[in-house]
Amino acid sequence: MRLSKSFFKTTKTLPAEETSLNAQLLIKAGFVHKTMAGVYAYLPLGLRVLEKIETTVRTRLNRIGAQEVLLNSLHPKQWWAQTGRWDEVDVLFKLKSQTEQEYGLAPTHEEQISPLMSQFITSYKDLPEYNPDTGQFPLAVYQIQTKFRDELRSKAGLMRGREFRMKDLYDFHRTKESQAAYFETMTKTYLQIFEEMGLEAYAVDASGGDFSDKFSREFQVVCAAGEDAIKFSPTTGFASNEEVYAEAVAKLETVPADIQTAKSAEVGNIFDLGDKWTKAFGITYQGEDNQPHHPTMGCHGIGTSRCLGVIAENYNDEAGLKWPVNVAPYRYHLVTHTSSKNQAEAAQILELAARIYAGEVSLNGHDLPTGEILWDDREGVGMGQKLKDADLIGCPYQLILSPRTLADAQLEWKVRGTGETFRVGLPR
Amino acid sequence: MRLSKSFFKTTKTLPAEETSLNAQLLIKAGFVHKTMAGVYAYLPLGLRVLEKIETTVRTRLNRIGAQEVLLNSLHPKQWWAQTGRWDEVDVLFKLKSQTEQEYGLAPTHEEQISPLMSQFITSYKDLPEYNPDTGQFPLAVYQIQTKFRDELRSKAGLMRGREFRMKDLYDFHRTKESQAAYFETMTKTYLQIFEEMGLEAYAVDASGGDFSDKFSREFQVVCAAGEDAIKFSPTTGFASNEEVYAEAVAKLETVPADIQTAKSAEVGNIFDLGDKWTKAFGITYQGEDNQPHHPTMGCHGIGTSRCLGVIAENYNDEAGLKWPVNVAPYRYHLVTHTSSKNQAEAAQILELAARIYAGEVSLNGHDLPTGEILWDDREGVGMGQKLKDADLIGCPYQLILSPRTLADAQLEWKVRGTGETFRVGLPR
Repeated sequence: MRLSKSFFKTTKTLPAEETSLNAQLLIKAGFVHKTMAGVYAYLPLGLRVLEKIETTVRTRLNRIGAQEVLLNSLHPKQWWAQTGRWDEVDVLFKLKSQTEQEYGLAPTHEEQISPLMSQFITSYKDLPEYNPDTGQFPLAVYQIQTKFRDELRSKAGLMRGREFRMKDLYDFHRTKESQAAYFETMTKTYLQIFEEMGLEAYAVDASGGDFSDKFSREFQVVCAAGEDAIKFSPTTGFASNEEVYAEAVAKLETVPADIQTAKSAEVGNIFDLGDKWTKAFGITYQGEDNQPHHPTMGCHGIGTSRCLGVIAENYNDEAGLKWPVNVAPYRYHLVTHTSSKNQAEAAQILELAARIYAGEVSLNGHDLPTGEILWDDREGVGMGQKLKDADLIGCPYQLILSPRTLADAQLEWKVRGTGETFRVGLPR
Repeated sequence: MRLSKSFFKTTKTLPAEETSLNAQLLIKAGFVHKTMAGVYAYLPLGLRVLEKIETTVRTRLNRIGAQEVLLNSLHPKQWWAQTGRWDEVDVLFKLKSQTEQEYGLAPTHEEQISPLMSQFITSYKDLPEYNPDTGQFPLAVYQIQTKFRDELRSKAGLMRGREFRMKDLYDFHRTKESQAAYFETMTKTYLQIFEEMGLEAYAVDASGGDFSDKFSREFQVVCAAGEDAIKFSPTTGFASNEEVYAEAVAKLETVPADIQTAKSAEVGNIFDLGDKWTKAFGITYQGEDNQPHHPTMGCHGIGTSRCLGVIAENYNDEAGLKWPVNVAPYRYHLVTHTSSKNQAEAAQILELAARIYAGEVSLNGHDLPTGEILWDDREGVGMGQKLKDADLIGCPYQLILSPRTLADAQLEWKVRGTGETFRVGLPR
């Protein structure tokens, strides 16, 4: 991407009521535009980060046999009435058509996936038992999609949205054993996903940790703006939600010496739903015993736009954002500075930059992949402003090419995360 | 994709009220699941086709300098009140939050993109004049997203949805010349996009064709289930909406001899919006004359889920779907048939198929790219059923490997579009 051809700009002006750090940074750096509390539009840089997060999620889920679909936002009232949630779920947006049909605007999709899957689950053969050893995966279906919640308060920027992006996966099993085993695999997959996007997540059991009809596991990231609190031990990896800490720690042989308490944000969760939905929507399979049964069902969420918010909230300094490499909008931010007083020198700088931008050269032993370079080639913008913008946008590596560095046949390489800078010889 | 590991199935059962051919075919073949009239969920095959359509659109738009964003579905009432459309637009879904805030559920995004762009358009420098010769593109922003329309009737399957997928692009110009030139480039790009997805579209001017504040151009595809009608000449490419035919044909020097009339479906459109929205939302730039001006604005839509519906409607026969190569869910449908009576032979067939599936072999001079093969490796399903499913699903090329073909060291290659079959020597 060349900034001279990009419409978005960094800004110092914030919406008056925007108190959330992640939203402030993302707005200032030109990643998002605020529509209203809890609703943000993604500008090109924000969309790239969101897509990288969602690609990470998708890739890891496909590897454990999950199948992608795309469900709907408009749900007939009848579905939600069938489970009693039409009246129970406060955050369900409700609307009526011109012909007085009532719809819900889906905040989650158990009410859609269940009637849908009832078409495809008829025999025990449709419900393979999970076997990690043979690579036989269970029936698991997911989507990555925009969701809606009628939140009373929405002041945490992208961390709690009225309109937000989410991955939700639903799995179906004949046995609790298959379900429990897939939950463990999912836990590992989730931890890998979060690690890949730069988030150190702790898996905490919301209940005491017994796999039961009420079982659920949350994935918490230490975050000052989070709405939850965890107690955790960085050395042992033990973690628990604050409210069930006594229960959780009672199960340990020895209590870690370095238990800390911190605010945290829930970036994912997995639930055992039992047969509540499969019963309500009549998902029935004929077992090997020729009798009808209801499968047990799980639900696994990751808030992809919330992850974006948490990353912004956790990776920054006074100068701006500091993206982890895997989810950075671009890995490299190339800054060129040319003077109109020396045309030959300017031409040399721009030609070199164009070759770097095209991915034609290696620098510092790195191949710079085309498509991963943001080039600030704006004319009429001073070097000081360009460097400020580079820090604010926060790509991991800044490559600075100016008359000064050119004179030494070098460019300056700055690591945004650490502030470290060094010189690198220019390619010929 | 291996069918033995896929949850969806072909079906003979249709929802009772489903009268649309495209929806019937897509449901039978397991591409979509009907939620309610005008609302469909995408199962894995349907999602793949949709993504190929949207990738085609994205790739072509990026080439003409358009920048991708992702806007919102929840719009504050105030935006739509500002243009008077809150009360004017019948198909606008309206909803209220718990705190009685009123929102619209966006069917189109002029009301969002305009206040958003007012932040970024301040100077004439933000509005480069389009110059096809130098490759200087104008300011053009687009998204591909789910939209909502409160349709009174919705009986054309995926061709008219209450919830549907759409690409919408908005461009901003200082001059009508820049806008008109970009419209011509967009027309060419649209025709390329539709051709790439197998749709022969005609660009027809909704008005007499003068570029004015009322100018708009529609892209119509001949389709028996379409809601429009065009008169067109296959030899000269002349086409007109039926209602303005007299006006359009009056401008021709000679009237083509082969004018036909046909029902058609509008798959895209481009509009000149003048300064209605830029005035309403105060988008003002300082011109080279140091005076404030409102840009002129255009809007360019492509209904991506409607395209999917039109392709299904136009490419089929009694046996099922016949996808154009570029948007087929998979290019190749590999069918294996093994007999439990001959284990050695079955092993040989499955090993060969696995190599084909992995993209390790060329067949008939074609490299078979990994990721473009749907393998029907189901056990316990007869060859007759597998071949019926292959025809119903409609991938362009069927590769059939059975004991019979193996005996000749060949496989059968069937072209779904033409029904043509021939034998191809097996790789060693």
